[in-house]
Amino acid sequence: MKEKGLLIVLSGPSGVGKGTVRHAIFSRPGAKFEYSISMTTRKPREGEVDGVDYFFRSREEFEQLMNEGRLLEYAEYVGNYYGTPLDYVNETLGSGKDVFLEIEVQGAKQVREKVPEGLFIFLMPPNLNELESRIVGRGTESVELIRNRMEAAKREIELMSLYDYIVENDHVDLAVERINAIVLAEHCRSERAASKYIKMLEGK
Amino acid sequence: MKEKGLLIVLSGPSGVGKGTVRHAIFSRPGAKFEYSISMTTRKPREGEVDGVDYFFRSREEFEQLMNEGRLLEYAEYVGNYYGTPLDYVNETLGSGKDVFLEIEVQGAKQVREKVPEGLFIFLMPPNLNELESRIVGRGTESVELIRNRMEAAKREIELMSLYDYIVENDHVDLAVERINAIVLAEHCRSERAASKYIKMLEGK
Repeated sequence: MKEKGLLIVLSGPSGVGKGTVRHAIFSRPGAKFEYSISMTTRKPREGEVDGVDYFFRSREEFEQLMNEGRLLEYAEYVGNYYGTPLDYVNETLGSGKDVFLEIEVQGAKQVREKVPEGLFIFLMPPNLNELESRIVGRGTESVELIRNRMEAAKREIELMSLYDYIVENDHVDLAVERINAIVLAEHCRSERAASKYIKMLEGK
Repeated sequence: MKEKGLLIVLSGPSGVGKGTVRHAIFSRPGAKFEYSISMTTRKPREGEVDGVDYFFRSREEFEQLMNEGRLLEYAEYVGNYYGTPLDYVNETLGSGKDVFLEIEVQGAKQVREKVPEGLFIFLMPPNLNELESRIVGRGTESVELIRNRMEAAKREIELMSLYDYIVENDHVDLAVERINAIVLAEHCRSERAASKYIKMLEGK
């Protein structure tokens, strides 16, 4: 029987650069996990593509999946829904592949309740000024929204110790290296790897 | 205050290639940890250098350190003592550097008792035939000693689940990559990394 894949959850405060890090991970040759595309009711930002960055859906379509229990997690965040379609995740893990989720902090909390054995990684800004300038730099939000986001981000950072790992996003390449190292290391953890070798001993 | 370094313990059955992997780790530029040279009473093999591969000492000298409690661990293994000088390890960890030990399985068990928060990595042969041919290939032992070593190796492999990680030594470069990934990942574990970021929140 094939070993079940790992569920890897990358989260962190709004504006920390989760999307950029995820893009970098999957744009490299040899990415070893499957990306689970999130679903959202927010409008696409410039350059975002439906079915690549997100599945962009109406509130009505989203709420139907919610009611049918077909979302691993969902959250309403500054007026929009974000969520993870459940079927794809289960099928991919079952086939032995690791699944990578990049989601908001509220959603990560729900996944932790449903899949406690998942691998939870918190992406951390190197400092709060940096975080603020990234939120401002996006240029898509009003002053009040920026203030709200900063307050939300600080509350989110306080949840970091609920995660298994904290990865600083001081530089995208370093963050990617750390995340890849974490996944490789987790596959070597003895509670995961031992069963394979017990067979070796029994065979001789 | 500087965070204390990690104690990294690489062990595994006799003949698995611990020394080769350790050499590869430290021969690369940018190795991030300090190697703790073991002490032994066995005779140097061809090419081995005192103070580099081991501290080669007489039984009398070794037993004196044992009696003075100045060894983190020691073991008698096929007629020779192997051990780790304690002072060097404590000083290096205290200065915030990671210390890397490559030791026999008996010794690793003692270190686990004294330093339970250490990082214990078990190096695993890809299969038992491979292990046997490595032990034979060394060409330094008699047939009876080889048989003894194979039996000892099998008993040692049974202890793998006492370790935090199992790293397969199917290829030296891959084993090195896995070990480096494990150390990098462990530094990101939230119980180690969180305190640094709590200060960030308090600062603003």
